[in-house]
Parts: sequence; C-alpha cells; structure tokens
Amino acid sequence: MRNILIIGAGRSASSLIEYLLNKSVTEDLFLTIGDLSAALAERKTNGHERARAIAFDIFNEAQRHEEIGRADIVISMLPAHLHYEVAKDCITYKKHMVTASYISPAMQELDALVTANNLVFMNEIGLDPGIDHMSAMKIIDEIRDQGGKVILFESFCGGLVAPESDNNLWNYKFTWNPRNVVLAGQGGTAKFIQEGTYKYIPYNKLFRRTEFMQVEGYGRFEGYANRDSLKYRSVYGLDDALTLYRGTLRRVGFSKSWNMFVTLGMTDDSYVMEDSETMSYREFINSFLPYHPTDSVELKLRHMLNIDQDDIQWEKLMELDLFNAHKIVGLRNATPAQILEKILSDKWTLSSDDKDMIVMYHKFGYELNGQQKQVDATMVCIGRDQTFTAMAKTVGLPVAIAALQILNGKITTPGVQLPINKEVYLPILKELEEFGVVFHEKHVPYMGYNPQNVAS
Amino acid sequence: MRNILIIGAGRSASSLIEYLLNKSVTEDLFLTIGDLSAALAERKTNGHERARAIAFDIFNEAQRHEEIGRADIVISMLPAHLHYEVAKDCITYKKHMVTASYISPAMQELDALVTANNLVFMNEIGLDPGIDHMSAMKIIDEIRDQGGKVILFESFCGGLVAPESDNNLWNYKFTWNPRNVVLAGQGGTAKFIQEGTYKYIPYNKLFRRTEFMQVEGYGRFEGYANRDSLKYRSVYGLDDALTLYRGTLRRVGFSKSWNMFVTLGMTDDSYVMEDSETMSYREFINSFLPYHPTDSVELKLRHMLNIDQDDIQWEKLMELDLFNAHKIVGLRNATPAQILEKILSDKWTLSSDDKDMIVMYHKFGYELNGQQKQVDATMVCIGRDQTFTAMAKTVGLPVAIAALQILNGKITTPGVQLPINKEVYLPILKELEEFGVVFHEKHVPYMGYNPQNVAS
Repeated sequence: MRNILIIGAGRSASSLIEYLLNKSVTEDLFLTIGDLSAALAERKTNGHERARAIAFDIFNEAQRHEEIGRADIVISMLPAHLHYEVAKDCITYKKHMVTASYISPAMQELDALVTANNLVFMNEIGLDPGIDHMSAMKIIDEIRDQGGKVILFESFCGGLVAPESDNNLWNYKFTWNPRNVVLAGQGGTAKFIQEGTYKYIPYNKLFRRTEFMQVEGYGRFEGYANRDSLKYRSVYGLDDALTLYRGTLRRVGFSKSWNMFVTLGMTDDSYVMEDSETMSYREFINSFLPYHPTDSVELKLRHMLNIDQDDIQWEKLMELDLFNAHKIVGLRNATPAQILEKILSDKWTLSSDDKDMIVMYHKFGYELNGQQKQVDATMVCIGRDQTFTAMAKTVGLPVAIAALQILNGKITTPGVQLPINKEVYLPILKELEEFGVVFHEKHVPYMGYNPQNVAS
Repeated sequence: MRNILIIGAGRSASSLIEYLLNKSVTEDLFLTIGDLSAALAERKTNGHERARAIAFDIFNEAQRHEEIGRADIVISMLPAHLHYEVAKDCITYKKHMVTASYISPAMQELDALVTANNLVFMNEIGLDPGIDHMSAMKIIDEIRDQGGKVILFESFCGGLVAPESDNNLWNYKFTWNPRNVVLAGQGGTAKFIQEGTYKYIPYNKLFRRTEFMQVEGYGRFEGYANRDSLKYRSVYGLDDALTLYRGTLRRVGFSKSWNMFVTLGMTDDSYVMEDSETMSYREFINSFLPYHPTDSVELKLRHMLNIDQDDIQWEKLMELDLFNAHKIVGLRNATPAQILEKILSDKWTLSSDDKDMIVMYHKFGYELNGQQKQVDATMVCIGRDQTFTAMAKTVGLPVAIAALQILNGKITTPGVQLPINKEVYLPILKELEEFGVVFHEKHVPYMGYNPQNVAS
C-alpha cells in the first residue's frame, strides 16, 4: 500500500481527496488527511476505510517528522508560506511533494538538493497557476512543433458564479477568498507588453482598461490586467513575443462598477477607520464624500461619480443596500477594505444551492509559413455543489493526478518543478477531460497587428 | 564671545546665517559653519570676520565631539534623520540645540535626559512646521483668553512662484525639492474631520477635492488636504474642535491639471520602467496609454482624460513639451515619478531672476458668548533673490531668532520642545514682522455649520 499524506483539508482539498479515495483500491493507496481541525479532516475522509484523519499542526516538529517519514508522497494544501517546512522534511526523509502554489524563492533554492536526492517537487499544479500553464504550453508546443513562432499570448482566468446561480446585477458572487477580490489589483502597477511596447496601468485605471471576450454558450466576459504579465515570459520561451498579457475575468460591466469603490477609496487596506465598529453602512459611504449640511449622501455620491438617475451603476449600489443607516459595520479597528468585504458579503455569498464557475481564456497569435494566425482556447467548468465546487475541482484534480503519476513513476524528472513539460501536462490534461475540464480551440483571424510607420 | 555651531549650509541656511552674522557684533557671536562642502560653507560666511567655515562630516565622531564641545548652542540644518547623532552629543556636552524638523520618536525619547540636563532642544521652528505652529497658537490662545472656544481650525501653506515671476500656464515652478512635489499626497490616505465627521480622501481624488481661498492683493488659491490633519489636535488643545483640516496651497487650477499625471500613473515611484534611459518623452506618455496601430498618442491621451480641444488642460500639457519624440529621458532604471520630475524640471526651474513666494492661510472658527465667529489670518512672503528666497527666510529666521533667544536666556523651559508656548512664539513672531513676515487677520462670518436633522 502506498501512503499519501495530505496536509490541509480546506475547501480546495475536496475533489483532490475524492479522486484519490476513488482510486484507493485499484491503485492501492492509503490516505492520511491532516488538518488543524481533526473534525474537518474526518469529514473529508467520508468514512472511507482507506483514509485516516488526524489533527495535524505544521509547527509540531515531532508529528511532522513522523507523518512525513511514513508517507510515500506528501501533498501540501497549506497556505503558500508554510510549504517550506514541509519541503525541508521531505528532503530529509526523501519523499516526493506536490503543491498548487507558486514556487517561492526559498522553495526554488531547494532545487539542487531535491534533484540530488532524485525527488520530484511538483508545484503550481492547481488551476491558476496550474491548468493555465499546462493548457498554454500544450498549444505553444504544438505551434512550435509545426515550425511556427508565437508572437502573442494572452491568458485570462476567473472564478465566477455559474449562469444558473447568477441572479444579481453585478453578475458576481464570492466563490473563493473574498478578501483577495477586494484587494485585487493593489500592490503594484499592472505591467504588460503590447506589440513590442511596454504598457503600465495604475490601480485607478485598472478597471477602466479591460478587454472583452466571447465564450461560446456562455456569453461575454471582460478581463482586467494582472500585476505582472511578464512573469512566465522566459519560462514559456516567449522572450520574443510582441504581446504578453495576463488578466482576470469578470462578467462585462463588473469592472466599471467595481471602479466606483476604487475611486471612492473603499478598497484601501492600509489604514484603520475611526469608529468602524459602531459606524453604519451609510456613515461608511459618507466618510469618503465631502461634508455638506443638507445634501444627501446619495446625491453627493451621484455627483462625485457622475451617475445619472437611469444609470445601471445606481441600481447596483442600491442592490448592495449601501445607504442603509441602520445596518452597523460591527468590526473593530477595520480598514475600508475589510468593511467593504463585509458589506459585499451580505449580498454576494453563495446560497446553499448556488454553483460556481471557472472560465479560462487563452489567445495565441503566431507566424507560420509567413502567415499570421491565431488560435483561442477556452475552458468552462461548473461546480457540482458547494463542496465539490468548480474551484475545488480545477485546483485539486491536477494535484491529485500529478501525485499519483509521481507515485507510479510516470513523472520522474527530479527537482523543484512546474508543469510545463509534455510528459507532465499531456497525461494530466487528458485525464482532466474525463472530469469535464475540457479546452475548446478555435482558429480566428489574427487580431494583433503592428503596421510600420504609425503614430503609436 | 558665544559660539554658535551651524551644521548644514544648504539652501535653507542662507537667511539664518545672514541674520546671525548681522547680529554678531552687537550680540557678541561667533559662527562656525560646517558642511560636507567646505566651499559651500565658505560662501555662506560671506567673508565675515566672525564666521569660520569648515568641512564637516556628521559621521566623523571625533570632529563632531570637538566642534559640539566648543559651541554654546548647536543649530542642525541637516536632513531630519541625522539630528539624532547631534542631539546625543549635545546632551553629553550639555549644549542647547535648535532644528526646523519634526520631532522624531527617537528625539522625543531624549526629552527626560534633555530636561534633566536643563537644556533646551527647540524643534519644528522653521516655516511648516514652525511659523504655522506659532501663528496658529497665537490666535488660538487669544480666543481662549477671551473665553472663546475654537470649533474649527484649517491651516494651509504653500511654496509658490512670486506673481512677478509667474509666467507659465501652471502658475507654478519648483521653489523647493521637486521630488517632494511629484510625490505629494502619496504614502497614505488624507484624513481630516469636518463638522464632527471623519473624512478620508484617497490619492486618486486628492487633487479633485480642493478648497478655495482669497488672499487680499494676491488673488485666489486652492488647497488640497495633507495626509494627517489630526496630528496636532491634542498638542493645540483642539480635541473638541468639529473641523480640523491642514492642506497645501497652489494657484487655482493646478490641482485639476496635476491630477492628469496622477490618473495616468506618472507620479508612481514604486517601480522602475523598462528602457527608461533611451525612452523619449513621447514614449513615456505612451507607456500609460493603450496600444493602437494608428491613433496618435495625443488623441489617445485626450480620449482617456476627456480633454476637449479648447480645454486649457491641453495647453498646459503642450507647454510641457510632453509629446516630443526627440527629447530623451536619459535616466537609467528610473521610476515614472523620477521621469516626470525630469520633464517638469525642463520648464518649472526658476530662472536666475525669478523669485519665490510663501503663502500661509489659517481659519479659526470659534464660539464666544453664545455667538459663532471666524477669524482668518494670512501671510505672504516674497523672496529677495535665489539665495535669500522666501523659503530660506521663513525657514531660517525663526531658527536663528530662537537660537539667539535661548543663548540670551529668554527661552528657558528645558526639554524637547516645539514653539507652541507664548513666551516662545510672541517675541519670535514680533521680530519676524521686522523682516516682512506679517500675518493679516480678518474677521469674517463663521462659515462652518452643522444644523441638526440633516442628511449628512
């Protein structure tokens, strides 16, 4: 029997554990599921005889050594900054390791040691990062194998509410960490490259310079730029590409409305507001508007944001019950971002029968035999319920599949890895299709262009 | 003979040194002027027999001890973070000290030691901080002495170009550190209190929510909010005031135009731009605009900022020669803010015969005998030339006067001080009047108001 230690049994572990339990007999697996909450770990075992739930504290060194020592492979679903402790022990006890997180500089430094011990540490193998790498590299490699040259790569991903549960004016609900949604776009100017020119978008314009995309059967989406679109330029071998852009998907209209909060200053997480605990929602809004003895909060806001009476922006604000003088924030020493998150959570929390949706959209522009071509690839995944969400599925399944492939000696290249090589991504993408994670490719006219002698 | 050690002979030391040299015979003073540049120090002595110039390195401990040891009082015109080394030596050798800088936490911690040694460390006695404290406390104390209660305090200060040298569309030139002008308003949301309500202005709205003021004989000005208007609330005894607002003055229209740079992202100092050294001004602008194969940089910018063809904003941009494709930035690894500073310096640097201007504007609202009243106090100071600027005068003279008062035993309260007590500010403000630094007071109808039962 092969022992798999899974550390962290939170939301993103559901589909991962289900997959491995379903394979546990045929593949002869035994799962140890560790979480700070033993009860949570227990629930995830679903009473399966090939699983054992334990209360697991990553800072309990003795326990960590013992459990890692008896495992054949370790899957860490911990927050990213906690992987390093696990990684060091995995080297000591010579165990493979899998995470869905970005490779940290500390993790990267372990590469030589991991390689010397002939271990595979597979990272960035969730959704984003993960499925984005694999699905992009598959097409990039196909273009190259034909003798083509990639000149444009744009990639978008979004966690959204499924169409059947999409019943508010924002076409949005929180399907993952709401705090990350409120803080999105902060912490650095968005940087990308378009037709050979570096472009920068400051936070105050981020949600006003979006791109639009159509996904067959699912309608239109918009994307705003991620902070660093150039992060994987060299990793993907795209140093000569003229256009590189990575973004986050929302339903059309979301960004324009979200920008109201940005403009007012409500997404700021850098300072604590006075009297936040006893403040009403109305007072919260009014804190960002000029004082006036008689003008209403409503009119002051309409004036500042230039909202006409028949503007849908107004309906969106009303839907959030933002101007309510009786709803109290109730958070001590809270930042504007924390208060906004609370207000939005009143309306944007999934109901028990709501489903989530993951959408990914890639564009590849390339030159082949002197011609410019473009292929777009799209993937839509709808959640089953609130445990087996589209997010849990798309994050957890690639992790689980990769872990089993490593155990079975199918993925062998040692070192601190990410899934950009054919032998890794091809079988995983293929198996993901059985679970409904399918990319649809479509050839379209090449849309990028760079005529010479123009005033750009 | 009393020895005064002046450390730092830069721009703000000119009027300070001139004042003390003029008094050196009658007051029996001898000045040692130390600067990293001996030549600069030498120029400031103006060949006076009662002054000695030395090359002085604040990190040369032996020299520091020797020079501080032989002084009767030390004036530190160093950058604020360097005062602490001087202060410790001043305690060791039991010397008084004067600075124009904000009291740092480290400096504040010396208070007990300074007091125990019966020394006076007078700080924040330049212009802002300095003259603002003194002129505000004078009127606040007068109101209190009459039995009144201050309910509103607004205070504005600006370093501008004198009307006779004001010959560009921005009505602005760099009269002090340009970098501080470009970065103004960054580093924290502006916070103040208006009629009992805390208000917050994010950076993207800071230059669009200004207040307007008229100064007799000098026309209209506008003020944008400083980061923390509540800093001196307790120090001034204004904990119960309903309105507290501190701001920076510009000529009307400057802020609206400056906001174009903020919106585009050109004031950002947090990242380095690609290829900044070889980039043209035109390319710099284009970095913040969307790519288009044929639309001009001009039209893209007009569209993004919604600038009509007859809008003065456009003339202001043209005046800066922003769209020039032949002017090269020439700065390696530069941030947008550094590049913008360079572009603005081409046009906003004072000519040799230009003069600067300092404007200060205070509003005091108060209740007296059941009536609400208001008094406004304004001060305008024009520079003599490019050495004896209004800035050098208003920063340096209060420092010099305070130093002499301490030497003469007129200011005696020991400790780490700022000039908010009558015995300090009254004689200094009086003497400043002889140098043309005069506040004009004017009673106006009380403009603050807070009627009950309104929808604020």
